[in-house]
Amino acid sequence: MAYSGEPILAEDLLFRPAHSLIDQSMHSRLGATTTNGDGFGIGWYGEGAQPAVFKNIEPAWNDRNLREIAGQIRTPHFFAHVRASTGTAVQRSNCHPFRHGRWLWMHNGALHGFHEIKRDLMTAVDPALFADIEGSTDSELLFFLALTFGLVDDPFDAVARAVGLVENVGHAHGVDAPVQMTVATTDGRSMWFFRYSSERQTRSLFFSTEIEKLRALHPEVEVLRHLGGETRFVVSEPLRDLAGAWNEVPESSAGVVRPGRDEIRPFQPISPG
Amino acid sequence: MAYSGEPILAEDLLFRPAHSLIDQSMHSRLGATTTNGDGFGIGWYGEGAQPAVFKNIEPAWNDRNLREIAGQIRTPHFFAHVRASTGTAVQRSNCHPFRHGRWLWMHNGALHGFHEIKRDLMTAVDPALFADIEGSTDSELLFFLALTFGLVDDPFDAVARAVGLVENVGHAHGVDAPVQMTVATTDGRSMWFFRYSSERQTRSLFFSTEIEKLRALHPEVEVLRHLGGETRFVVSEPLRDLAGAWNEVPESSAGVVRPGRDEIRPFQPISPG
Amino acid sequence: MAYSGEPILAEDLLFRPAHSLIDQSMHSRLGATTTNGDGFGIGWYGEGAQPAVFKNIEPAWNDRNLREIAGQIRTPHFFAHVRASTGTAVQRSNCHPFRHGRWLWMHNGALHGFHEIKRDLMTAVDPALFADIEGSTDSELLFFLALTFGLVDDPFDAVARAVGLVENVGHAHGVDAPVQMTVATTDGRSMWFFRYSSERQTRSLFFSTEIEKLRALHPEVEVLRHLGGETRFVVSEPLRDLAGAWNEVPESSAGVVRPGRDEIRPFQPISPG
Amino acid sequence: MAYSGEPILAEDLLFRPAHSLIDQSMHSRLGATTTNGDGFGIGWYGEGAQPAVFKNIEPAWNDRNLREIAGQIRTPHFFAHVRASTGTAVQRSNCHPFRHGRWLWMHNGALHGFHEIKRDLMTAVDPALFADIEGSTDSELLFFLALTFGLVDDPFDAVARAVGLVENVGHAHGVDAPVQMTVATTDGRSMWFFRYSSERQTRSLFFSTEIEKLRALHPEVEVLRHLGGETRFVVSEPLRDLAGAWNEVPESSAGVVRPGRDEIRPFQPISPG
Repeated sequence: MAYSGEPILAEDLLFRPAHSLIDQSMHSRLGATTTNGDGFGIGWYGEGAQPAVFKNIEPAWNDRNLREIAGQIRTPHFFAHVRASTGTAVQRSNCHPFRHGRWLWMHNGALHGFHEIKRDLMTAVDPALFADIEGSTDSELLFFLALTFGLVDDPFDAVARAVGLVENVGHAHGVDAPVQMTVATTDGRSMWFFRYSSERQTRSLFFSTEIEKLRALHPEVEVLRHLGGETRFVVSEPLRDLAGAWNEVPESSAGVVRPGRDEIRPFQPISPG
Repeated sequence: MAYSGEPILAEDLLFRPAHSLIDQSMHSRLGATTTNGDGFGIGWYGEGAQPAVFKNIEPAWNDRNLREIAGQIRTPHFFAHVRASTGTAVQRSNCHPFRHGRWLWMHNGALHGFHEIKRDLMTAVDPALFADIEGSTDSELLFFLALTFGLVDDPFDAVARAVGLVENVGHAHGVDAPVQMTVATTDGRSMWFFRYSSERQTRSLFFSTEIEKLRALHPEVEVLRHLGGETRFVVSEPLRDLAGAWNEVPESSAGVVRPGRDEIRPFQPISPG
Repeated sequence: MAYSGEPILAEDLLFRPAHSLIDQSMHSRLGATTTNGDGFGIGWYGEGAQPAVFKNIEPAWNDRNLREIAGQIRTPHFFAHVRASTGTAVQRSNCHPFRHGRWLWMHNGALHGFHEIKRDLMTAVDPALFADIEGSTDSELLFFLALTFGLVDDPFDAVARAVGLVENVGHAHGVDAPVQMTVATTDGRSMWFFRYSSERQTRSLFFSTEIEKLRALHPEVEVLRHLGGETRFVVSEPLRDLAGAWNEVPESSAGVVRPGRDEIRPFQPISPG
Repeated sequence: MAYSGEPILAEDLLFRPAHSLIDQSMHSRLGATTTNGDGFGIGWYGEGAQPAVFKNIEPAWNDRNLREIAGQIRTPHFFAHVRASTGTAVQRSNCHPFRHGRWLWMHNGALHGFHEIKRDLMTAVDPALFADIEGSTDSELLFFLALTFGLVDDPFDAVARAVGLVENVGHAHGVDAPVQMTVATTDGRSMWFFRYSSERQTRSLFFSTEIEKLRALHPEVEVLRHLGGETRFVVSEPLRDLAGAWNEVPESSAGVVRPGRDEIRPFQPISPG
């Protein structure tokens, strides 16, 4: 779940909605797995230029510290993630969101055949970044490939190149459909999101309708009155049932939420060489 | 899940069945909650007179240490429990099975109105045992009440008196149906089990058919050939679908599994005074 | 460690001083134990009326989440504690500071003979508060006794009565010197501290000199320029060596730090009945 | 701490000696750090061909599960390790001993300049082994380099080649003294140990005197009567003070403990190419 807008209390994002992320962690309705109990993480921008992250290997629904600090964090950019491991260890360094400098990154999905292709992908990471990889997941490695290909300068291009590389390496190792991903990433000003899979059957991703339009549609819904005009959510599953509130990100698309005009465009991997 | 029989590898009990306890912890089919991710515990008899316990607050499905030691434990009496907290803290001292001397105890269910009745129940615990209570759950307190009422000498009577006390105290505080419980307890020789609730609508409990009968019914099922003649399971949910293998413990009943003849009898609380 | 003064970043309190609390947790110079690795906790006042707490059972020096959130917390009232267990379980509910309503409480020391006197002390707790006790420590129980005796209205009197009760109960059980304590407690406006032990040999406690006086003494020390005029620390061990900065709280004394004039006075237990 | 000999209860190794490993974890006398509270691990051979490992990120002295299972493990080959992190994350996958197939490996010390040389070392690992690296430490990577160079066939040669490579790569990156290590490794039959550092100032390592000789020296020491004739310890610090019991492994040496005659020989890195 990614939020961008007026500074808001993390507690209101995590625990208030009818089908909140915490609730989803126990009973996902749309996810590939119904239980997301293999760690969680949140990231936000507050004091200092770097975002802060709080991550833990307990299920999110059990973490009393999460409830405590969620009641104290007020932020304009908030990322939250619940993990269902696809095999790699349940440890803090494998929890999303991942951070590098001013950037946060989270990923749902998998790089298929990861055990076979991991070495080739790691050797493709910029040597100057290599030793900053802290965990053992496909998701963090995809982040470092995107950083290697220029995420800081042009996220659309960098992710397209990273995905292109993974598909190339995967195909070379006999993996038919190497990439399954929804990704959200932010530098604390803009937020980019991606929905793509090699077989063009990507898990769900939604973005929220502009608040002004929603208010006009649902003048009786009180929570909408408290949300700022720039509010935008990007989520794997709708946070509550509200007609007109959630728009599916089209298959093989990418987008950006930013001050001013948001944008969605087709996404296509860029093959190396 | 409780096992009594020939020494068996814990791994074969925890991870092998089609619908194993580990699987149940993620997707319970019969339980009041579908996810049991609030800690787990195992207890067994090996070296020394006292049983050993291994408990943790992580979900059982994530605990790599559990897999390691389950492959090393060979025991004739094995208890395993996955917890879905009814509100008390997720901490090791609240995980089942509880141990006192040679005894193990585990409980599914709840003492309703526990916040209101806790003080009266605690003051009813034998002062010599009081300070040995380590956690904050209703389940452990019920164990200590049973110990207070003579669990070591006559489990059927002691649990009946403990339940009678809880109902009395509950009613005095305006709680209609104070007790909801399935319980298993053992001293490493015999194993007792209880199914009872104040409203006579107790969650499920099953015991397994004698292995010899099962072998006759299912000569083709290989796993039955490896189980000893004295094998008996007591479980909240059947471990695998096998016609004739699982018998529901009747509502308001208690039983004992022991060397020689097992027994089931009606269970009725004994009111104090 | 307790801080009261201008809003300050927790990171500057926890990680910056030469002999910071984190450093003390690995190598205490004055404490009864040299390693305080049995959990830690922080408490602070921010959003909302209630203080927030963040506690964990890992050693403080290892907790990456602590570093993250310490960099985000700006607060005028900050409590931090590293624990060396005297026997009770290492679990979150046993970590300091303890919270009740607007109050925080932390304790160094022990109630001696706790296993023997626990039951009598627990039955002395206000029945309306009884079930809110979450852990199993002497420290939390002392807090609840103080609450029972009116902490919210008159902290000096309430703690004196709580200590008097513990000494009475202890003596009745043949414990010579039942109480060893330094305590700090706050409601988010004022902060009270206590140094007392039954044998009048209490572990160390210090309060910091007024910042204005310190600035006059050490015009060259830069950190003093950044601390507000109302700054006051109460600590078990001096945070850095600075002549004139630290004043020992006298044996058998109590004090209060508040807007306006602070105060120290003799402390004497009040025996019940 | 490494033990080889008659099957023995892990509890007697971990908790009984006057200066046991658990005690050392809180107050090391000889180590580079006085507190080893950054996780621990044990490995042993029991059921099945592969050794089992139990590792955790809590300090060893706090882990109640460790006490429980140590009382249940009876094994002829036992490894135990307490960790003081040199910077890499405190997570289970970074705890020693590391396992691969039938092999266990543990390391005290550091590869200096690890952040700079990590990528070159990782690319030197056998591609077939690469994806089995689970953690992020220098110690595990050294293990995988030794495996790459034939640990299974000739441990002395393989470790010499691994160390030679690390020194080469280190020097190429301007690191003066890349290797500081004491290592113990076993396949469950023999146990090899190594003491070496690039600057020839290696941290301490001791092996125990043959039990028969010790019994003759100290006929009054009861514990010696219970230890089998093949007993051999390899430890970083003597487990108890007993004249003639502990022999320092000489600087730049390696040795093997095995059925039949043990051996110590000089150790010299083998530079690649």
